[in-house]
Amino acid sequence: MDTSYTLQETGLAARLRIRRGEHCGPTAGLAPGFVQANLAILPAALASDFLRFCQRNPKPCPLLAVSDPGSPALPELGTDLDIRTDAPRYRIWQDGEPIAEVDDLRAWWQDDLVSFLLGCSFSFEEALLAEGLPVRHIEQGCNVPMYRTNVPTRPAGPFAGPLVVSMRPMLPADAIRAIQITSRFPAVHGAPVHLGFPETIGIADLGAPDYGDPVPVRAGELPVFWACGVTPQSVIAASRPAFAITHAPGCMLVTDLVNAKLAAF
Amino acid sequence: MDTSYTLQETGLAARLRIRRGEHCGPTAGLAPGFVQANLAILPAALASDFLRFCQRNPKPCPLLAVSDPGSPALPELGTDLDIRTDAPRYRIWQDGEPIAEVDDLRAWWQDDLVSFLLGCSFSFEEALLAEGLPVRHIEQGCNVPMYRTNVPTRPAGPFAGPLVVSMRPMLPADAIRAIQITSRFPAVHGAPVHLGFPETIGIADLGAPDYGDPVPVRAGELPVFWACGVTPQSVIAASRPAFAITHAPGCMLVTDLVNAKLAAF
Repeated sequence: MDTSYTLQETGLAARLRIRRGEHCGPTAGLAPGFVQANLAILPAALASDFLRFCQRNPKPCPLLAVSDPGSPALPELGTDLDIRTDAPRYRIWQDGEPIAEVDDLRAWWQDDLVSFLLGCSFSFEEALLAEGLPVRHIEQGCNVPMYRTNVPTRPAGPFAGPLVVSMRPMLPADAIRAIQITSRFPAVHGAPVHLGFPETIGIADLGAPDYGDPVPVRAGELPVFWACGVTPQSVIAASRPAFAITHAPGCMLVTDLVNAKLAAF
Repeated sequence: MDTSYTLQETGLAARLRIRRGEHCGPTAGLAPGFVQANLAILPAALASDFLRFCQRNPKPCPLLAVSDPGSPALPELGTDLDIRTDAPRYRIWQDGEPIAEVDDLRAWWQDDLVSFLLGCSFSFEEALLAEGLPVRHIEQGCNVPMYRTNVPTRPAGPFAGPLVVSMRPMLPADAIRAIQITSRFPAVHGAPVHLGFPETIGIADLGAPDYGDPVPVRAGELPVFWACGVTPQSVIAASRPAFAITHAPGCMLVTDLVNAKLAAF
């Protein structure tokens, strides 16, 4: 990543740079301090079901904003924001299968599409790092390991499937502090959902994540699990809507919201 | 315990009943909703050192009130409060050894004594129970297990010694919720200091607590450790002041403060 551009860059500046095609990959580290968001786009006929799904599953699916049907604007998240061009990379889904990855949605846009933007762990990781807590996958320069669990989400209409979690190994005192810090950020997954016993949530091998990269869990560390914004992609795969769009993993929407302002207290 | 008296009893009513000699034993369950406190009494010559010790070790020694030298009153904690008569049972210490247990301090009182009242886990256990979290030693009808750790307190003057912790086994999701709840109560030990690996804090055998009673830790449960108000007794034993008084274990001072009002947020 070219940090000469990203230090002190605003969310708007990063987004316009992405729109111009000057940044095409993962957005980790872009526009420090600004909220990045997970994206799911569905036809209006499914929007009510998916909205209810998010309401029932706020830990994996904390809604930051929902667009009007057919509108590419999300004024709550940013001025001059066009969801069709402003994420670096999108994944197109048909019948629950990814069929393409593109960097511009204008050829795929339909007048009935509704965009759902969900909080992302980048926001709480910034809060963890600001207090000096180590975040293993950032230290290792890789993606966070993510796992499909045996914990079902609460279904709504056709939407159902397993909770996906991300994992960060921590020493016990750091895990306690991380629980306190992330509890302040319910809009970006909030407190962990589990720690200590991967097998009880259906994870057989921490070394084989379903998404992202494995990281070492060292002696004396507890694996700490947070609900993950990849859950909607797992649910779309399980629920097989005729058409859907998501961001490509790691290629989030950069917004004008400020991470610190998401703190609930 | 005779619950016909204790249900809905105020802190003042419980304290006056104790003063009259009508209740002589442990105070668990007395005056629900009211704060109970750990007690340490030291000569004025040591008071400054002990006050600094508490300031440096707020998790085991969260100060609720400190008396004026020689005064048995603690107006911050209760009207009509006399520290010499209002706890059910006291332990007298000479040179770091307990030499007597008494139910009235008037024969031992000196004009230079300073009383230190410290928050007690009964307050946060009430908050845990109010949310339906299981507290094992309460279910088992015994005292909480407590352990001397290998974690040193921060010394002040002659006062030094190991941190004492209490342990409550919990399922991981309950442990996360318990961390959130107890974080709101810094005046009564606050968040846990450790969870998961007893041996890393110097506890070789959970089945052999240094104080209180052992409780079972079941499959899938994490042992969760909170700083404990018994720490001053361990520190007095290690520091060997010529004279000191504490409450007898479990026989706390019942105050007029309300547990719910201790919540920091």
